[in-house]
Formats: sequence, structure tokens, C-alpha cells
Amino acid sequence: MHDDPVVAHVDDDQEEVSELFTRYGYLAIPVVDNEFRLVGIVTVDDILEVIEEETTEDIERMGGVIDTSDREYLDRSVWQHVKARLPWLFLLMCSYFVTGGILARFEDAMSAVIALVIYMPMLMGTGGNSGSQSSTLVIRGMATGELELGDFIKVMWKEIRVGVIVGICLSILNYFRIVYLDHNPPLVAITVCVSMILIVIIAKLIGSMLPMVAKKIGIDPALMAGPMMASITDMISLCTYFIMAGLFLHI
Amino acid sequence: MHDDPVVAHVDDDQEEVSELFTRYGYLAIPVVDNEFRLVGIVTVDDILEVIEEETTEDIERMGGVIDTSDREYLDRSVWQHVKARLPWLFLLMCSYFVTGGILARFEDAMSAVIALVIYMPMLMGTGGNSGSQSSTLVIRGMATGELELGDFIKVMWKEIRVGVIVGICLSILNYFRIVYLDHNPPLVAITVCVSMILIVIIAKLIGSMLPMVAKKIGIDPALMAGPMMASITDMISLCTYFIMAGLFLHI
Repeated sequence: MHDDPVVAHVDDDQEEVSELFTRYGYLAIPVVDNEFRLVGIVTVDDILEVIEEETTEDIERMGGVIDTSDREYLDRSVWQHVKARLPWLFLLMCSYFVTGGILARFEDAMSAVIALVIYMPMLMGTGGNSGSQSSTLVIRGMATGELELGDFIKVMWKEIRVGVIVGICLSILNYFRIVYLDHNPPLVAITVCVSMILIVIIAKLIGSMLPMVAKKIGIDPALMAGPMMASITDMISLCTYFIMAGLFLHI
Repeated sequence: MHDDPVVAHVDDDQEEVSELFTRYGYLAIPVVDNEFRLVGIVTVDDILEVIEEETTEDIERMGGVIDTSDREYLDRSVWQHVKARLPWLFLLMCSYFVTGGILARFEDAMSAVIALVIYMPMLMGTGGNSGSQSSTLVIRGMATGELELGDFIKVMWKEIRVGVIVGICLSILNYFRIVYLDHNPPLVAITVCVSMILIVIIAKLIGSMLPMVAKKIGIDPALMAGPMMASITDMISLCTYFIMAGLFLHI
């Protein structure tokens, strides 16, 4: 896109221009119009502000906050804070209606083995954490330009291997806890452990793939991390758990 | 600390020096030793790299990844990825042993009203999301220098008001869903709704206070967001829920 001399175009996005500075390390870059006539320059100190703004936007989106204003925390009114937070909370809460529906279908299973409920938050939590580790790394990798959409398969393969190792490590500890500390039947422990391994792998896959898919279809990857990640993995964790319970405990 | 001319000291941390550039917008800053003798200069293009590194560190910590190496995603081996992720997952999983213990104490309550279990993921999820919104905003505010430890009370007061409004909005929708769609008794709906309001407020308070407390005692605030946030709010959500269940449903 850019000819030999490094230039910014008048209609370039500020994010693209800031990438030029990071890539080339210049102190100033000329700005040209469509006929490549010089119309001005951008200096690197302008870019520092741009980077700070863009990073704040990214981080806030990853934390489930909508950027309704460029104001800073204390300058935003209570209503502006509500407006920036309520939509995501609302949407995510609705996603839990689905999760609730899944749980409702397994009411009998839960009544039969109430011990299953005790390990539910751990499995959901670990799934969420595993997924958010992966999505954090991938989103940041794409923001700094290290990861490209073409790395899809490489990332997937790496996440699967990491997931298998991490899942097995966590499961070993869990098995002993459930059988020897909680005095639950080994079959309950096996249900929890197999679920754990599957959940960690699936969560890592989803956590790394979602931001890349988002970028592919033109949505900001940062929107896919954090809370959205968490509610999707919650659903999948529950389904996996109860399918395993059906398999191992015949309920 | 700094005299009239803006200078960096030889033993300044790179993060402090980058703040000087963001604050003053200079292209270069002299570096002096303890006797204020000029020993060199730092230019703003060096700082771009520093900012990128520091931001990556912050974001990764918020996502529960330990920065074991400065390598980028694809350059890290599977084992390095495991080393960067397993410790937090392990620690957080152990924190769920406590959550499991809390649940175990309420086994009878759950057996009595199994409907309670159905709304558990939603309450835990919403608590986690509310908390991570607050901690994201506060951590970023502190990173850009907008929020100081002295703003503690102001932040607390803002979070309480935001929490009350958000909590009530979410509860209203929930009440109708539980009573008219799920056909559960109004007392179950009231238990869930009152829990929801309390959980949102508490999660927002914890989410905003934790990073500030961390900074006060010298821990990186970014470590307090994301996963650690989630496991603490999970515990508190569960306790709040079952205390409310005891109060309204007498179980």
C-alpha cells in the first residue's frame, strides 16, 4: 500500500498511522493526499496520545465496558457509567437464561447426585479462566501485529497441546481431593476430571478462535474477550459436565 | 523529584520515563546521573516500544497469564505457555475448593429447592462481570495516571450508586422471567432479585477497591483484575445467595 517513502494518507485511521511509527521508529511521518502531494506531517508525540486512547478502548472492551465517551473515570457521571456498563451486563445476563435452561433439563440428575453441584462452580470458573488466558494472548498478539489471521491453524494446534497438559495437571490434583478429602465415590471424581480436561481444551480453543473469527468478520476482537468469553464457556462447561455425568454415572 | 528542566535519572524505571513523555509531549529527554550531569538522551521512539511492552504485560496479567518471557505468542513453546498459565489456573482452582465447601454446607437447601441451582450460574456470572467492569476501569485509570489512591472514597461512592441502579434494572427483568416464564414461586424470584442487587453492588465495590488496595501494598493492580476478581466474587455471590435463600425461603 505504501510506496518506498513511508507516508500516511489523509484518510488513514489513527490506529494505522500509529502502527507506522511503531514499525519504523521515525520521529515524524509526512501526510499526503490521494495524489501523493504533501499536506502536512504527524509527529510521534501526537501518536503517544493515540496509543493511550486505543489501548484504553481495547482494555475497556475486554472488560465489558462500552466506550460511550472519551471522558475519564471520575469525569463520567453515574448515568454515563450505567450506560457504559448496563448493556453488556444485560446481554450477558440473558445469555445465562440459556445456561439456566440447560441446568433445568438436568434437574433430575442434580437431585440424584447433589455432589455434582458442588463441583459446578469450579468447572465453570476454570473453563472461563482458561478461555480468557487464551483470548487475552491472541487479542494482544493481533493488536501488536504479531498474530495474523493466517496463523489460525498454528494457534489452534498450540492451544490444543497446552490445553491437554494443563487439563491433565489440574485433574490429577482434583481426583485426589474429591476421593480422599471430600470422600466422594471415584466415579464422581472421574466425571469431574474428564470434564475438566475437556472443558480446558474446549475453552482454550474457543478463547483463541473467537477473537480471530471476530476480526475476520470485522468485529473488534477485544469485544470477544472477557465477559462474552465467560458466558460462552459457562454454557459449554455445563453441557460437557452433564454429558459426562450421564456417561459415567448413568443419570 | 524533578527540577525545572524535565530530565530522566539513570536509575529511573522505564515506565516512569515513558510517563514523562506522555505528560510533556517532548521528542527527547536528557538523562542525568545523581549529580545532574548529562549522561545521554532518550528519544520518544524508544518509548513507543516501552509502552507496547508495558501494556502487553498489564493486559496479560489482567487475563491471568504470567509473563515468563518477553517472547511473542508463536515464539513461546508449548511448555512456556503451560508455565505462563498453569500457576494461576491452579491457584484459582484451589480457591474454588472453598467455593465448593460453601456449596456443600448448603446441600440441604439445594435439595429442598433445586430451582435455586438454576439461577446460580447467572448470579455468579453477573457478579463476575460487574466486578471486572469496575476493576478494568480502575486499573486503566491508575495506569494512565488519572486515578490516585486518594480518590478511594470518590470511586467507592460512584461504584455504589452505579451498582444500585444497574442491580435494580437487571432484577426487574429477572423477576418477570422467573415468575412468568419459569413459573417459579414469587419468593424464589424475590430471593434471586434481592441477591442480584446485593451481588452487583458488592462486586462493583470489590472490583474497584481490590486494585487500589493492591497498589497501596505494592502489588501490581493488574494482577487483581480478571480471574482473581472472578473467583472472589463467585464466593461472595454464593454466600449472598444462600443467606438470602435462608431469609426468604426459610431453608
